[in-house]
Amino acid sequence: MTRANRQTGILLIDCDDRKGLVAAIAEFLYSHDANILHADQHQDEEHGLFLMRVEWDLQGFALDDAEFRREFAPIAERFGMRWRLEYSLQPSRVAILVSQYTHCLVDLLYMHQTGELACELPLVISNHLEAQPITGFYGVNFHHIPVTQASKREAESEQIRLLETSGADVIVLARYMQVLSPEFVQRFPGRIINVHHSFLPAFSGARPYQAAFQRGVKLIGATSHYVTEVLDDGPIIEQDVTRVSHRDQLADLVQKGRDLERVVLSRAVRWHLEHRILRYANKTVVFD
Amino acid sequence: MTRANRQTGILLIDCDDRKGLVAAIAEFLYSHDANILHADQHQDEEHGLFLMRVEWDLQGFALDDAEFRREFAPIAERFGMRWRLEYSLQPSRVAILVSQYTHCLVDLLYMHQTGELACELPLVISNHLEAQPITGFYGVNFHHIPVTQASKREAESEQIRLLETSGADVIVLARYMQVLSPEFVQRFPGRIINVHHSFLPAFSGARPYQAAFQRGVKLIGATSHYVTEVLDDGPIIEQDVTRVSHRDQLADLVQKGRDLERVVLSRAVRWHLEHRILRYANKTVVFD
Amino acid sequence: MTRANRQTGILLIDCDDRKGLVAAIAEFLYSHDANILHADQHQDEEHGLFLMRVEWDLQGFALDDAEFRREFAPIAERFGMRWRLEYSLQPSRVAILVSQYTHCLVDLLYMHQTGELACELPLVISNHLEAQPITGFYGVNFHHIPVTQASKREAESEQIRLLETSGADVIVLARYMQVLSPEFVQRFPGRIINVHHSFLPAFSGARPYQAAFQRGVKLIGATSHYVTEVLDDGPIIEQDVTRVSHRDQLADLVQKGRDLERVVLSRAVRWHLEHRILRYANKTVVFD
Amino acid sequence: MTRANRQTGILLIDCDDRKGLVAAIAEFLYSHDANILHADQHQDEEHGLFLMRVEWDLQGFALDDAEFRREFAPIAERFGMRWRLEYSLQPSRVAILVSQYTHCLVDLLYMHQTGELACELPLVISNHLEAQPITGFYGVNFHHIPVTQASKREAESEQIRLLETSGADVIVLARYMQVLSPEFVQRFPGRIINVHHSFLPAFSGARPYQAAFQRGVKLIGATSHYVTEVLDDGPIIEQDVTRVSHRDQLADLVQKGRDLERVVLSRAVRWHLEHRILRYANKTVVFD
Repeated sequence: MTRANRQTGILLIDCDDRKGLVAAIAEFLYSHDANILHADQHQDEEHGLFLMRVEWDLQGFALDDAEFRREFAPIAERFGMRWRLEYSLQPSRVAILVSQYTHCLVDLLYMHQTGELACELPLVISNHLEAQPITGFYGVNFHHIPVTQASKREAESEQIRLLETSGADVIVLARYMQVLSPEFVQRFPGRIINVHHSFLPAFSGARPYQAAFQRGVKLIGATSHYVTEVLDDGPIIEQDVTRVSHRDQLADLVQKGRDLERVVLSRAVRWHLEHRILRYANKTVVFD
Repeated sequence: MTRANRQTGILLIDCDDRKGLVAAIAEFLYSHDANILHADQHQDEEHGLFLMRVEWDLQGFALDDAEFRREFAPIAERFGMRWRLEYSLQPSRVAILVSQYTHCLVDLLYMHQTGELACELPLVISNHLEAQPITGFYGVNFHHIPVTQASKREAESEQIRLLETSGADVIVLARYMQVLSPEFVQRFPGRIINVHHSFLPAFSGARPYQAAFQRGVKLIGATSHYVTEVLDDGPIIEQDVTRVSHRDQLADLVQKGRDLERVVLSRAVRWHLEHRILRYANKTVVFD
Repeated sequence: MTRANRQTGILLIDCDDRKGLVAAIAEFLYSHDANILHADQHQDEEHGLFLMRVEWDLQGFALDDAEFRREFAPIAERFGMRWRLEYSLQPSRVAILVSQYTHCLVDLLYMHQTGELACELPLVISNHLEAQPITGFYGVNFHHIPVTQASKREAESEQIRLLETSGADVIVLARYMQVLSPEFVQRFPGRIINVHHSFLPAFSGARPYQAAFQRGVKLIGATSHYVTEVLDDGPIIEQDVTRVSHRDQLADLVQKGRDLERVVLSRAVRWHLEHRILRYANKTVVFD
Repeated sequence: MTRANRQTGILLIDCDDRKGLVAAIAEFLYSHDANILHADQHQDEEHGLFLMRVEWDLQGFALDDAEFRREFAPIAERFGMRWRLEYSLQPSRVAILVSQYTHCLVDLLYMHQTGELACELPLVISNHLEAQPITGFYGVNFHHIPVTQASKREAESEQIRLLETSGADVIVLARYMQVLSPEFVQRFPGRIINVHHSFLPAFSGARPYQAAFQRGVKLIGATSHYVTEVLDDGPIIEQDVTRVSHRDQLADLVQKGRDLERVVLSRAVRWHLEHRILRYANKTVVFD
């Protein structure tokens, strides 16, 4: 998958499935001298949908952004496509919200430093102070916005103000333990990624490790998903599990879960930043 | 774990946790010349419980069954133990109930033939006919008892009669698609093992693959568990999962799930037959 | 992935990577009224190779087999393509070779009966007799060809005669414990699939479970691969592993390995039959 | 497994298997008022060995360290036991060696800070400078000792001097890319833990991801093990794998491998610190 340091264009499309879609898109790109690096498509038979991701080398490509949009528009219109055009070297701006558990944040900060997460990190917001030192170490702005029952509305306003000022494209909830209001969610549609510390839909809601422990499951999981207005119900991006046994006490579940949480969250963020994810029907297609 | 062809005694104990339990049990066995092959214990801190499984070579052991029961009784009483004594070479009698999907049955029949499942198989009961030829091939009795809404009570009576006549110790629901009545379940407490084709408690009830497909999960699972009067709520014995993607249609989920189902069911049956499972607090301890 | 009962055409291509390949192929299919159901491609950067699999609905497709071959030839020549055209409803003929361990065979026979393996099974050949009854049960021809040091050459001649007479397209070694001669392998290039009971390249050669046990590994594996003249060195199709611990004796490894073996072998055979596999550089591309 | 903040004693034993071992040990502990929290044993049939780990609450236990050693000695002698006594609240001193890749180090430092690794971290030694800032952030001493072909012997002397001065009990090679001399290894027998970025014994030696990529494997792995004088041959502590496909380029393997490496290494270090590991016959028993 990796094509480091290449300038690429990425076209993401979804529309009703029809004959000639692949030919039209491939022909369009070829006629403008695109060297296609990766093309993947998916047909959802149930919904009669066609979904595609195509990535090409910008070196030698004949169209600039404005030209592409002008030239491609008639094709898109002909097939009724929803589409977006992205560029690999135009990094997204990622804001992270976190509470007292910092393992996911620490992972994201480290991956950002090593270049594994190709994005900008304008700010970290937390209702706690635990995350401040490590955020500072990595040279990222830290904002402390406490949240109480009474101050929640006000706190969200301040969060939204900071997020919008920072130009954040995507908001990552790295174990942020407050439920966001519908107003907050609606402000950033399809742009909030959360990690839930269970194998959703099992144990949705609060205290999933406690619930899993009581139920006596033999595997625990974690789930990354887009946030929608319905709690823990958004499109799932990635899930993983690990084995537990009767020997594992609740504290062991929490500890084993930590590795799962950061793995499923960091994968989700990376795929989002690489424009690999298409959402439809409350599901995701992850083009790999 | 395997100690093929050895005659062993197996003692399973649970009681309130107290000092001196391990010493008392080990001393008792040693004083009667037991060569302990495997001893495993578990303390459940939440419930203050002590659970133990100890297995020893019967060769050279000084006590026969009656003597053991007489000699061990005062120790058990002193510590308030629930206990049972099993013998590796006294095979359980297993009855299998199955409907039209035969993959789990085929696996169990094959494992029985190769000796991997050390048990007797007095009968297979089905409300369909698909399983008849392969059951016959392996030389096991097949009983066809159709079940309709109207005939369900009567069918269960006939099943119970057959099961009791056959002397079945354990009843395996190898994708048996009828919900058993509470009366049936109560008749065989802790002796019915089911496989559910989802990662419980997610997607309990009917049509779990359909539900998983709609939810867009990235892993599907299967669960084997003891049957209690609450549907899909009994103590979980084993679970496993496999990865799916957007490319997998509903039929692919069903196909991938088949391997999971037979694996989690056959493990559960084998562990049960090897007397490795203790139940408590609607959970299982599986001594490995 | 599954598109049951649809008549589809499948085109498999590999060639040096060049601009315009996708456009040329898509345009060709579209111009003849193909409804593309699935298209997947892969570029190997190291070797500068382009590999593609495209599948389309034959309903409404304008070309019959001869016409396709005639019309597509100039395109293939222009790009220097190696290519083959397959049809989903033209089932391959699979021959199975097996020795005394029958678990993989039993799995393949069952999958064939349920329709999960869309192929014909003209014959099973074994140097032992264990597989005879179950092969007969499923109505497949069984041939017993004993193999000794002395008779090996003669036995292979007889095997080859049977295989060629039966019109077998693919030969599955379902735990066939004899090393095939280079002459045998050369006779069926790219058409022999083997399962090796280790995570290759670890523990290649004989007695891999013994070697894994001695080395004290914490996971054991199994590998399905195409057979080449170099033992255990052919292109890997699929691998899987399962966890073991110090509690597992050698016999436990063998038992746990059985499930791995049949899973990796049955996946490999299914993918081969669905024309999902392209070989290059002693590797495989498995289009999913 | 977790019993946070309890003061416990841990006894690790191995000896030839004999009747009465469990009884003698349990009786000894009980007679001195031990409340056994966990007892696990293993018999290796091949070598006729008995291995045991027993952990008890020190609260109310009648013997101090000197008394235990005096009282237990005759029992140990009678059975020919090798044994050691450890205390949960007597933290080991861990030294970390690292080169330019810091992901494993970062993980260990974080786990140390959160208390998940119950140890002291007196120093980090590196032949590179990449690890210096993060080591300093966590308040751990950093020593830069460059290593060249010419300076290797001298560098090892300086490393050994620092390690011995620091009182390090265990040395963790967190992707330390220099091969240690036999003299170095002999100085710290059974006390050096390494992570190898392959599923050993596959791809031992240098550049394992390159070798795995060339071989076209479908899973990649990582292995943590004790270091012995034979390169990559020491007793394996933990292994894990993750799935790869033809889509993964070499750089993707490296990236996916990173998560494996830190997981298998951090588990190994934690188990070592919790005195869960017994070595014998170039293998490990990991009591869980």
